[in-house]
Amino acid sequence: DDVLETQESVDHFKGEPMRHPALIRRAEKPFNGETPPSLLIEKFHTPNDVFYVRNHLPVPQVDAKTYSLEIDGISLNEVSLSLQDIKKFPKVSISATIQCGGNRRTEMGKGKPVAGLGWTGGAIGNAKWTGARLVDVLRTAGFKPEAYKHPEKFHVKFDGLDTDQSGECYGASVPLSYLLDGNFDAILAYEMNDKPIPIDHGFPIRIVLPGIVGARSVKWLSRVSISDEESQSPWQQRDYKVFSPSVSLETVDFSAAPPIMETPVTSYICSHDDGDKVKKGPLKLQGYAFSGGGRRIIRVEISLDKGKSWNIAKISDTNDTNLENTRNWSWVLWEANINIQSSAEIWVKAVDSGYNQQPEDFKNIWNYRGLLATAYHKIYLDVLT
Amino acid sequence: DDVLETQESVDHFKGEPMRHPALIRRAEKPFNGETPPSLLIEKFHTPNDVFYVRNHLPVPQVDAKTYSLEIDGISLNEVSLSLQDIKKFPKVSISATIQCGGNRRTEMGKGKPVAGLGWTGGAIGNAKWTGARLVDVLRTAGFKPEAYKHPEKFHVKFDGLDTDQSGECYGASVPLSYLLDGNFDAILAYEMNDKPIPIDHGFPIRIVLPGIVGARSVKWLSRVSISDEESQSPWQQRDYKVFSPSVSLETVDFSAAPPIMETPVTSYICSHDDGDKVKKGPLKLQGYAFSGGGRRIIRVEISLDKGKSWNIAKISDTNDTNLENTRNWSWVLWEANINIQSSAEIWVKAVDSGYNQQPEDFKNIWNYRGLLATAYHKIYLDVLT
Ligand SMILES: [Mo]
Ligand SMILES: [Mo]
Repeated sequence: DDVLETQESVDHFKGEPMRHPALIRRAEKPFNGETPPSLLIEKFHTPNDVFYVRNHLPVPQVDAKTYSLEIDGISLNEVSLSLQDIKKFPKVSISATIQCGGNRRTEMGKGKPVAGLGWTGGAIGNAKWTGARLVDVLRTAGFKPEAYKHPEKFHVKFDGLDTDQSGECYGASVPLSYLLDGNFDAILAYEMNDKPIPIDHGFPIRIVLPGIVGARSVKWLSRVSISDEESQSPWQQRDYKVFSPSVSLETVDFSAAPPIMETPVTSYICSHDDGDKVKKGPLKLQGYAFSGGGRRIIRVEISLDKGKSWNIAKISDTNDTNLENTRNWSWVLWEANINIQSSAEIWVKAVDSGYNQQPEDFKNIWNYRGLLATAYHKIYLDVLT
Repeated sequence: DDVLETQESVDHFKGEPMRHPALIRRAEKPFNGETPPSLLIEKFHTPNDVFYVRNHLPVPQVDAKTYSLEIDGISLNEVSLSLQDIKKFPKVSISATIQCGGNRRTEMGKGKPVAGLGWTGGAIGNAKWTGARLVDVLRTAGFKPEAYKHPEKFHVKFDGLDTDQSGECYGASVPLSYLLDGNFDAILAYEMNDKPIPIDHGFPIRIVLPGIVGARSVKWLSRVSISDEESQSPWQQRDYKVFSPSVSLETVDFSAAPPIMETPVTSYICSHDDGDKVKKGPLKLQGYAFSGGGRRIIRVEISLDKGKSWNIAKISDTNDTNLENTRNWSWVLWEANINIQSSAEIWVKAVDSGYNQQPEDFKNIWNYRGLLATAYHKIYLDVLT
């Protein structure tokens, strides 16, 4: 790195890792890069080196030998664990999709501008995450669900080792109730797709909270704490909340909406871009669909005539073959063989196991931060004549 | 009842209870009656005598003294419990909304006909349900979550005492995973709003499965069973499933969709009907909003200009004051003071704690059975000049 350092301009981003050239760079400091959607459909598990990177602060330098995770808070004993300590817990793996709250923001911003990084549909990825179960680790600190008589009043807070210039760290929290759900799989991940978790993804430990917006899966995890209040970080209190279309940055009351947790059902066409020119005749469309909260995708539908008729896409890749399964943390990859005879707008929508449906367009879910842009994905295909 | 009985026509509906005259009768045998929406907004807990009744079969005559509940199935001991036995378990109460899968069907059917009872927005109600926790009762039969290594392969089946003419009883099931969720509140209810549960609502015991479509909360409960298959009843296997708009009764593959469990976010204007004439000026609108799966309602919005601008309604009645709460089984009642200057279509939409949004209209969620009709509620108000 050849940035000049002076007393006025210290580069807090000196130690950043190398990034794969395929990542579409949306910001440099902090680094934010998006996976080209066409790469997302190549594999059910997105390769580590092209997995989208969403950093809020400079990447911290962490020495695995001296790393320690602190555990404390209400009805817990204070415990400090090394990476080796964490690796002694039963090793479990989950397949889980992580998605940025701003994924697909550019589509929402087309009608009316929104604030935030200009993600298209690649601020999402699916990986195999391996590590220790959070509840197993918390039990060594004396965690007992019965200790919290009103669990709705408590939160599990996560701090990262990444800090701003005043020393404040990245932070997030989730309601304690998630830990009381025997179906939930919070993992202190030290492996991503069977390799040590890369620096950009939280080396040596990332808390992976499946089905919940990516912003809560804190990287470079330094501390887990049970508290009677939420994380007070700006990312919990202000940035990742969705307000009414009638609310602007000037009129917003940040206390009027909860932080995003589970994300709504979404779907995306990855094989083609809006405006692509295609030949008349058979055409294979491919993409992903995902819903938060462990809700599986039960159906993906394609329309070539703005909803007059719908074709059911084939789920080409899923780790879930049980139609009655209520918990699934991974996206599905889908494909649809269509026959396109003239230029048309192509729509995709998905339905999740809670029979939630996507909104048809962005107008009525618009919010000034451009979050949870989960309307139907619509692309125009120009048929060559 | 003065129906003539002959050998050819035995009235299986002889023992039906009296029904409140306010119920809007949608079918007589079996009885189905809807609460007038204007009554729904009077009380947070819908009174028992006007709570909607959705019967699939004749109401059974049950003697509380000889009633028994059978428990059996995989990794359980066979246990038989009297009503008195059930009342010995810790007595717990939950406030929970129960909604028919066909609520608001008539709206969906306006664009294209659908099959089923012609419910408007009154096939829903909210009550206080009191009884024994299902997990407490199952524990006396030896229930241990650890006994089911692959919980996703198991189901909890519920049989009713109501039977068809061939002797087949009403039945339903839910995935076992619900019982592994420490936040879920399945109740063997013997009281509804602090009174013995009425005959039409399942006397002496109804299983109340909050956040799940009403069809699974089996009335006149006779048996709870853990099985490696779902209930094989037609209501589980065929009737309460939602298919693509492209599927008709002629083309349906019943195995292609899962039974409805959690229901999506919905909202309804109860104070006024479509086509009502109102005076120019201030007007108070009132209604309900609800989401399944324990998701609370975080916002209700009203538009007088087809989505160009939105007003945030006031939540006038809720049992949930904690914005971070992840589990809430009750609807909210809302009100909005608008100022109407000329005839207009009024829209209401709600957002739940998973930031799920309603679809804007019915066209793309249409299904031939008219289920989960959860688009924005839109009514036209005619301003008198
Ligand atoms: Mo994010
Ligand atoms: Mo129902």
